[in-house]
Amino acid sequence: MTDDTKPFLALAVGDPAGIGPELAAKLIADPEVAAMADLLVIGDARVMCRAAEIAGTALDLPVINRAEDAARGRSQMLDLGHLDPDALPVGVASAEGGRFALENFRTALLLTQQGVTDAVCFTPFNKAAMKMAAGRYDDEMGFINSVLGIEPVASEFNVLENLWNARVTSHVPLSAVAELITRERVLRSIKLTHDNLRSSGFTRPRIAVAGLNPHAGDGGNFGHEDDREIRPAVEDAQAQQIDVEGPFSPDTVFVRATKGAYDAVLTMYHDQGQIAMKLIGFDRGVTLLGGYPFPICTPAHGSAYDIAGRGVASLGASRAAALLAARMASART
Amino acid sequence: MTDDTKPFLALAVGDPAGIGPELAAKLIADPEVAAMADLLVIGDARVMCRAAEIAGTALDLPVINRAEDAARGRSQMLDLGHLDPDALPVGVASAEGGRFALENFRTALLLTQQGVTDAVCFTPFNKAAMKMAAGRYDDEMGFINSVLGIEPVASEFNVLENLWNARVTSHVPLSAVAELITRERVLRSIKLTHDNLRSSGFTRPRIAVAGLNPHAGDGGNFGHEDDREIRPAVEDAQAQQIDVEGPFSPDTVFVRATKGAYDAVLTMYHDQGQIAMKLIGFDRGVTLLGGYPFPICTPAHGSAYDIAGRGVASLGASRAAALLAARMASART
Repeated sequence: MTDDTKPFLALAVGDPAGIGPELAAKLIADPEVAAMADLLVIGDARVMCRAAEIAGTALDLPVINRAEDAARGRSQMLDLGHLDPDALPVGVASAEGGRFALENFRTALLLTQQGVTDAVCFTPFNKAAMKMAAGRYDDEMGFINSVLGIEPVASEFNVLENLWNARVTSHVPLSAVAELITRERVLRSIKLTHDNLRSSGFTRPRIAVAGLNPHAGDGGNFGHEDDREIRPAVEDAQAQQIDVEGPFSPDTVFVRATKGAYDAVLTMYHDQGQIAMKLIGFDRGVTLLGGYPFPICTPAHGSAYDIAGRGVASLGASRAAALLAARMASART
Repeated sequence: MTDDTKPFLALAVGDPAGIGPELAAKLIADPEVAAMADLLVIGDARVMCRAAEIAGTALDLPVINRAEDAARGRSQMLDLGHLDPDALPVGVASAEGGRFALENFRTALLLTQQGVTDAVCFTPFNKAAMKMAAGRYDDEMGFINSVLGIEPVASEFNVLENLWNARVTSHVPLSAVAELITRERVLRSIKLTHDNLRSSGFTRPRIAVAGLNPHAGDGGNFGHEDDREIRPAVEDAQAQQIDVEGPFSPDTVFVRATKGAYDAVLTMYHDQGQIAMKLIGFDRGVTLLGGYPFPICTPAHGSAYDIAGRGVASLGASRAAALLAARMASART
């Protein structure tokens, strides 16, 4: 593999008051990432110089000022020149910080849509800063859809080492969940999960599907969605040769999966998966936004204002995010 | 403390095709339990002789045939003479096995209601056998209410070492949960949790309350129950000097609690707590049915047909159940 066949990842620098810039600096210097991908770091060169000092790493890459000058074959930095680090205190959410992160992310998305880069990574955003910058801000996917001008069947995947979690519904009130659990939606989510696992390198991913109700409805005693919507969707997917089982009782499916019986658990709603994933250490994991024309990956942890500026933030989750994006981008080309 | 001030626990022997009898035999022989309580073992003497052989323990206690002969001051066995162990295969659910366990349980409940004994323990039931014996069988609480002829504010508590979990709703469809989350019900559950923790020995229990919706509603973006029902209930309880906080985001509350920040987590629905508790090892824990005139405790694990009859079942959870019942019975007297 010559250098210019390596995937080219757009790396959007996250919230500048948090650990996002120092993690980006560490990613640039990481040999494991360098072996698998070239980076187009998108941010402000002054912010990144400061971050490299904090991280104790060399910022050894050419700086370009115009996206048109981006070229495959080596890592480089696109300097948007939009934030003076002296103007911003560390560890405090601000609209300016939110705008910085969103602008980096927007640029990364558009350049990847144009084919300049192959995938998007970003270091942590801060939700409060995003809200200050953008008004209402629920999650990344609404933003991505509006930037790309598309609304694909997409989903957030949570990846912790070899265990994936996807969900049929996400940021909706619990009272709205049950009516959203339809055979069609569940099948769509199973297929999306299958496809994303495949393109990340699983040859024949094993998927477990959680039920919706206590004990997966217990034969209809505690609700009918498990038998009437979820089970038929699982059977539809099995008929398409997908290795999927369920619906399982929601309170034991992660116990099975953490013992290695499955590569992924498809959950029906946000907390069904998040309660489990956070308990087993998801802060060390990766969030993948899958279903877009290219992979979008970020570490699962937050902007960690409490430790920002000290250079102590662990690179593990950011490295895993970059490597997952690289693997998926390679599978696509 | 002389012998006859020890609490006197009714121990109902569970499903005879599972590990229930051998666990009862081990409990009888356990010095830690013997130091804290006397047992009235309720079952069939032939079943218990067989179980003691399997467990490799001595069945060193007098056998009585009539409940009227039960007397405080030492452990004894009430032989209902209702099951020949040769008539029943090991590891198979049957109506006869279900009837045996239910009859033992019914007797234990009634004797404790009459004051003959102070608390109830039971070794594992088998749900399928219970259904065969009793027709529809959702959970123990409906059965208890019908035997005792009362319908108190009661709740299942799951106890794993020093972490308790209680829930506002339990065996209902997920679609029915949100409308059941009212300020009144949440407050009632907080108080019940507080009272049960107190009578088990916590001087000033620290209770965390989970929200209902993703991120506890995120300020109303994903539902209003957290702000309109749960938070006011928490404030009501605080005004009554209960040490309670919340609502917390459901996906981080157990992470906090497992780090020792709280003694109990009150969850809004079945799987919110069960997903977490099962992941952190609740099979080693205890289920307490609290809110009745006396404590009712059982190990959290099931009847384990796969290992029944081999004497290898771990006593840990059953011992913890008996000790919790003894502690709570002592606090009441």
